[in-house]
Amino acid sequence: MPLPAAPPFPDMPPLADLHLAAGRQGAPYQNRDDLLFVSFRHSVSAAALFTRSSLAAWPVRLSRRHLKESGGRARALLVNAGNANALSGAKGRESAERIARACADKADCPLNEIFLASTGRIGKALDAEPVLKALEAFPKDAPSLSWERAARAIMTTDRFPKGAFRQTFIKDAPARLCGIAKGAGMIAPDMATTLAFLFTDAALSASIAGRLLLEAAEESFNALSVDGDSSTNDTLMLFATGEGRSAAMSDLTDFRQSLREILDSLARQIARDGEGATKMMIVRVSGAKSAVSARRVARAVAESLLVKAALYGGDPNWGRVAAAMGKTGEPLREESLRIRIGGAALFDGEPLAISDAAAAALRRHMEGDEIRIEAHLGTGEAEAVFRGCDLTPDYLRINSGGD
Amino acid sequence: MPLPAAPPFPDMPPLADLHLAAGRQGAPYQNRDDLLFVSFRHSVSAAALFTRSSLAAWPVRLSRRHLKESGGRARALLVNAGNANALSGAKGRESAERIARACADKADCPLNEIFLASTGRIGKALDAEPVLKALEAFPKDAPSLSWERAARAIMTTDRFPKGAFRQTFIKDAPARLCGIAKGAGMIAPDMATTLAFLFTDAALSASIAGRLLLEAAEESFNALSVDGDSSTNDTLMLFATGEGRSAAMSDLTDFRQSLREILDSLARQIARDGEGATKMMIVRVSGAKSAVSARRVARAVAESLLVKAALYGGDPNWGRVAAAMGKTGEPLREESLRIRIGGAALFDGEPLAISDAAAAALRRHMEGDEIRIEAHLGTGEAEAVFRGCDLTPDYLRINSGGD
Repeated sequence: MPLPAAPPFPDMPPLADLHLAAGRQGAPYQNRDDLLFVSFRHSVSAAALFTRSSLAAWPVRLSRRHLKESGGRARALLVNAGNANALSGAKGRESAERIARACADKADCPLNEIFLASTGRIGKALDAEPVLKALEAFPKDAPSLSWERAARAIMTTDRFPKGAFRQTFIKDAPARLCGIAKGAGMIAPDMATTLAFLFTDAALSASIAGRLLLEAAEESFNALSVDGDSSTNDTLMLFATGEGRSAAMSDLTDFRQSLREILDSLARQIARDGEGATKMMIVRVSGAKSAVSARRVARAVAESLLVKAALYGGDPNWGRVAAAMGKTGEPLREESLRIRIGGAALFDGEPLAISDAAAAALRRHMEGDEIRIEAHLGTGEAEAVFRGCDLTPDYLRINSGGD
Repeated sequence: MPLPAAPPFPDMPPLADLHLAAGRQGAPYQNRDDLLFVSFRHSVSAAALFTRSSLAAWPVRLSRRHLKESGGRARALLVNAGNANALSGAKGRESAERIARACADKADCPLNEIFLASTGRIGKALDAEPVLKALEAFPKDAPSLSWERAARAIMTTDRFPKGAFRQTFIKDAPARLCGIAKGAGMIAPDMATTLAFLFTDAALSASIAGRLLLEAAEESFNALSVDGDSSTNDTLMLFATGEGRSAAMSDLTDFRQSLREILDSLARQIARDGEGATKMMIVRVSGAKSAVSARRVARAVAESLLVKAALYGGDPNWGRVAAAMGKTGEPLREESLRIRIGGAALFDGEPLAISDAAAAALRRHMEGDEIRIEAHLGTGEAEAVFRGCDLTPDYLRINSGGD
């Protein structure tokens, strides 16, 4: 039983000075774009968070270098779907470099203002030729595509395109924030990677953009796990196209909130589209000794195979939740521990009896597609939230299919 | 397709001064023992490794205290299957304490020479009454049971009893080592826990027994994962019944080797009986900067959902192996990395082409039930081995069944 129908793509207005083009470079998808080219009319501020994998893909290694060399300036971003260009040896590096040079020619800018992102199969060098051809074929004066079309061009086995928009303010000046993402965790047969790209027409320095991105990601993308496997290609970028003096941190309260909301929305869409997932789970841990400890405990629950399997079976199995928390070795005491699922109190220093009415409500909650697990550790004041999804026969079907 | 038939239980001779009794205390198993009582004619040396869970079960907490208070002396061990007595509140503690007192009466020994272990459902206090009744009913002069009968009495959903035996020597004197275990990772619906109990007729001080146990476990039980969920009840104990002066570490070379072999054999039997598993995997990582780093990398591969799913599908997906290694953040370089599966070289700084003959051999290897994954990191000299198993629809079926 898959999740209800895909959510509708949100209304998202165009952004000034930003151009979206899409094309096909030959990934084995039927009749759809697999290449996105985002270009800016002028050099803009850029910030990025890349995968922490020690085997990062060539586009990540190249983009990381460019970000450093350019001091956070960007003129174009190219994303291809279908091939991650990861673990692809010298040939993969060569492809990435050739493609980046072609993008710099197209955008007429320094090489280090080009950023690349790839998603798809690991272990095969990306063939540069079809990418270069598609890039060349983009008509110079075509109108910018819609955000939905852009979001579709970066999908691999995603069931739906993912986007989010917020109208916000910096002091009294309006600012727009647009985001697109692809996700679905690790995807069949090797389609790895979470990619997300955020764009604003605000004026932000690269260093402020970097601080905002890190802060917002901690509470959303870095608190999300479909299957615990982070990829060789994960990339999250923020581009700020506004010219003139950067807004100061002190003026960015609303903006930061909107950025958090956008990332939160994208993270939820990704969790909802987790491979074969039928249910999301939101794990809230409070009363912990520290935020790090709360996060470790919440993450252990969200990633526990046994909790994921229980969720799939609609079983409010608090014993597995507790076992997953315990295995972290974090400071916990049975005597002060409280666990609720779907609002129903199930453990409070000891197993609780549950009324018929509460049991019926809990059953209904477990039949839903968003399961809330709350634990209060009673050892401190810190808290954290982590999101996950259930583990289903479909996940296995998708991921055991071989090549 | 489950694994081939269960391995035959090994021939295991009785040990002097050790008595095995089994009975029924009412776990919901059809017509079989669910209680094991091991008693020693005199006080013997004991060493133990307990779960690192911060929510350890009451029998673990009690045994940990007894081990400390008695300075590593034991007269009896009681194991019950069907109820873990974990997260069971004040009632669970009371049960454990009552049962321990009854064991001390039965064995006529100080309370702190009694050890308890429980396995089964989490979150329900163990009912002491049927355990006390069964204990009382053990006839005083019944002959000691066989090791196989003992191993069967501690099973939950294990498909077969697990035992291992080695005849070894300390200097020129013969010494016997017997071990039994239960495993199958976390088991349906909440049957947690790996338990293993080793017995030798050698004379060992408690502190030497502790050192030997820790050393042997690092290479076997602590390098094994069925599903990454360590339980509230995991317990590994070594009892040495020999009287007189303890053997010195320097005389224990053969003995240590035998102990490693016994634990290794039990760990393999547990991995082979992993829930719903059809294949074992043995991950060998070499050329790492440190043993800790090698172990982290090997463990990440053995526990990766994507690798486990690929194995189930018979897919020699080295890209997922690399992605799992990379996500650890350990020092790795694509350029110096080598990966082999089933002996076939698949990556050496770049993806390798593979001959038809090698591809055919690899396919045959992937159809077997023991998959060998080797990675050489090329960044140092250290190595580690970690064992795991595949992830199958049966695992999900077993673990999503609710109560």
